[in-house]
Amino acid sequence: MVDIRESIRAWIQENRQEGIKLLKRFVQEASTQGNEKHAQAIVVEKLRQIGLKIDIWEPTMRELRKQEAFVTTRESFEDSPNVVGVLKGRGGGRSLILNGHIDVVPEGDLAQWSEAPYSAVVRDGKLYGRGATDMKGGNVALLLAIQAIQELNISLKGDVIFQSVIEEESGGAGTLACIVRGYKADGAIIPEPTNMKIFPKQQGSMWFRLTINGRSAHGGTRYEGVSAIEKAMNVVTHVLDLEKKRNERINDPLYQHIPIPIPINLGSIKGGSWPSSVPDEVIIEGRMGVAPGEQMSHAKQELQTWIGTLKEKDQWFEQYPVQVEWFGAHWLPSELDVEHELVQTLTKSFQEVKKNDPVIEASPWGTDGGMLTNIGHIPTIVFGPGVTEMAHFPNEYIELNTLFEAAEIIALMMLDWCGVSE
Amino acid sequence: MVDIRESIRAWIQENRQEGIKLLKRFVQEASTQGNEKHAQAIVVEKLRQIGLKIDIWEPTMRELRKQEAFVTTRESFEDSPNVVGVLKGRGGGRSLILNGHIDVVPEGDLAQWSEAPYSAVVRDGKLYGRGATDMKGGNVALLLAIQAIQELNISLKGDVIFQSVIEEESGGAGTLACIVRGYKADGAIIPEPTNMKIFPKQQGSMWFRLTINGRSAHGGTRYEGVSAIEKAMNVVTHVLDLEKKRNERINDPLYQHIPIPIPINLGSIKGGSWPSSVPDEVIIEGRMGVAPGEQMSHAKQELQTWIGTLKEKDQWFEQYPVQVEWFGAHWLPSELDVEHELVQTLTKSFQEVKKNDPVIEASPWGTDGGMLTNIGHIPTIVFGPGVTEMAHFPNEYIELNTLFEAAEIIALMMLDWCGVSE
Repeated sequence: MVDIRESIRAWIQENRQEGIKLLKRFVQEASTQGNEKHAQAIVVEKLRQIGLKIDIWEPTMRELRKQEAFVTTRESFEDSPNVVGVLKGRGGGRSLILNGHIDVVPEGDLAQWSEAPYSAVVRDGKLYGRGATDMKGGNVALLLAIQAIQELNISLKGDVIFQSVIEEESGGAGTLACIVRGYKADGAIIPEPTNMKIFPKQQGSMWFRLTINGRSAHGGTRYEGVSAIEKAMNVVTHVLDLEKKRNERINDPLYQHIPIPIPINLGSIKGGSWPSSVPDEVIIEGRMGVAPGEQMSHAKQELQTWIGTLKEKDQWFEQYPVQVEWFGAHWLPSELDVEHELVQTLTKSFQEVKKNDPVIEASPWGTDGGMLTNIGHIPTIVFGPGVTEMAHFPNEYIELNTLFEAAEIIALMMLDWCGVSE
Repeated sequence: MVDIRESIRAWIQENRQEGIKLLKRFVQEASTQGNEKHAQAIVVEKLRQIGLKIDIWEPTMRELRKQEAFVTTRESFEDSPNVVGVLKGRGGGRSLILNGHIDVVPEGDLAQWSEAPYSAVVRDGKLYGRGATDMKGGNVALLLAIQAIQELNISLKGDVIFQSVIEEESGGAGTLACIVRGYKADGAIIPEPTNMKIFPKQQGSMWFRLTINGRSAHGGTRYEGVSAIEKAMNVVTHVLDLEKKRNERINDPLYQHIPIPIPINLGSIKGGSWPSSVPDEVIIEGRMGVAPGEQMSHAKQELQTWIGTLKEKDQWFEQYPVQVEWFGAHWLPSELDVEHELVQTLTKSFQEVKKNDPVIEASPWGTDGGMLTNIGHIPTIVFGPGVTEMAHFPNEYIELNTLFEAAEIIALMMLDWCGVSE
């Protein structure tokens, strides 16, 4: 067994340049929502090269709408394929899903980027660009791990199912479609950017929209109106108070080093249409974190009730209550016991490669792990090489060394989890 | 002379239904910026009926760009004509411009309107709809006054120049174009909605844009970013402090009953693009009031300096200062001595019709009076029948009785100002 493990290490060292080249190509494709197909074409090309059985399909609304967990901001997934590659085992071993999303969030304010967001520049051992860390770097680690197994002619007992999915950033419809299509396994790894921490638990989250009313007036007699912008300021403060209250309740030791375990993020604001008019409506959209083990419905109710208490602070809201809607995406929270054998197996490979113990924490964000665990009933760990703090940031980057370490750790755990056929 | 004055009163009484019908037609044309031509066609039809010499033209950028006072949010005025009708006097009298704008502000949140905004419903002596008060009702008062003079075969000595202008709501390019085209007079009346108050002074105003920066991050680790929405809240509070400071300085007795003589209105806010990302930019657009007699440049400098002091309240703004831009519209402030003969003449007609003294105040908003006074050097009063508080409001309306009173007052003051040829 030592020889196989050593040869995996050597193979990954020898194929660093190929890995970097692959990640560059991925990052150079701006695979924001609806624009995933060019990046998926590169996945397909790579899976053909490795020699996996390939499944490419566009999820359909008809099928997904039957699922209670389904959420989307889209009308259709036309032109946005999922891609799955299967490495069939010899039988008698445990199967493993390796899942990564291909979609990236928009690049935001270009002025804050030192380089163009899709240039994929490499400097000082880091590769820069939108998606480098979240999570195309993780995907490359998976592909290298599988390729190493294949090129070294290692025969696994259990199946390995690689999934390159759309829609993680807006609620997990891509991974849900994989479950609906019948992909199951005894365990799953998602290499989201965890700074190489092991996350057996993940925060869930969901999107909300707050509509705040004012009363319009000419700006020159603005005292005759009520500014929805000023009222929105009260709402922002009130929501931040709820965030504080909810986080004071979190005592899971896995969250002890995280400043805000379940954040409420106010992501966008929009209101008013004319500089000389008092704005009569402001809409705020945001994301509410849900604790592992918390019911989504409980969290929803808590926000709605809290927003209802605004009227105690400001009578305006008695007459014009803020409307709360839930829309678009949600990510289910997820919990795996830290004693589960999947955690043990991954920990062992981690120790073997890194020569120290992994940090085991709870994730500050939802991932497709919620779908795999809650809907697919597949024990799932989130563990990957990306830099957590750079996800969704300008100048997003990944440290290339950790990418190759992750590839090695995952390849080794595949041997142990799936078993090797002599 | 008593006979002429009495017959004007009688004529207006007899033509109330025609006036209401005309106002309905005007309100039913949604003459927002760029969509003025159908309402202007009704003006032209009416001027032909009255028998005035008509001038219709689309202002050109080439000509207006030479004017320092010119501001616009548009690329072109194609399809947005100005209309002027001239009632030539017999000579030897003072000329008078009667100026009204045909453009209306957008209707805002439809849910706040009881009736469709352009339905022009009449109920309990009020006509409802966007533009009813600001200022199509005033325009109808002008047209009725002129028509009364014409149909009663009264020959005025001085010229009367009726102007139906575009672009008042975005900075006065229409009235500026009239001045550039050569229209001059010894005095001017603008029947903006003043609640029948006489405004010899008007507040100026100008539009600004504030760009507030944050730093993006994933919403699940939002503590790694800086929310531009939260930073924008500090900016809103800071701007409201400046408004307070500037208004404490105003001691003109004409402003004594106005809660905020020169408001700073924050009209729109927009920032962030994704519920699960920390927003890295918020843009606020607003309108700054300028006191009669205050230099526009002084007011600009004061806002810019004030915004610069944000860094004393929050170090973030040291590194990421809020950017201030001036864009789109401005309206020059305007001052006419309350002893000016135009004020006296209008006051006399007012007393004759209303049997009491007019309220003489300073306006809380800019009008095209700034252009007429500062650029055309034409003494100008703003006086009209609309309801100040309903301008730019949902459920905007005008009280029809005051419309006919204003028509009578203006017709009578035309006799006195222009002189009657026997």
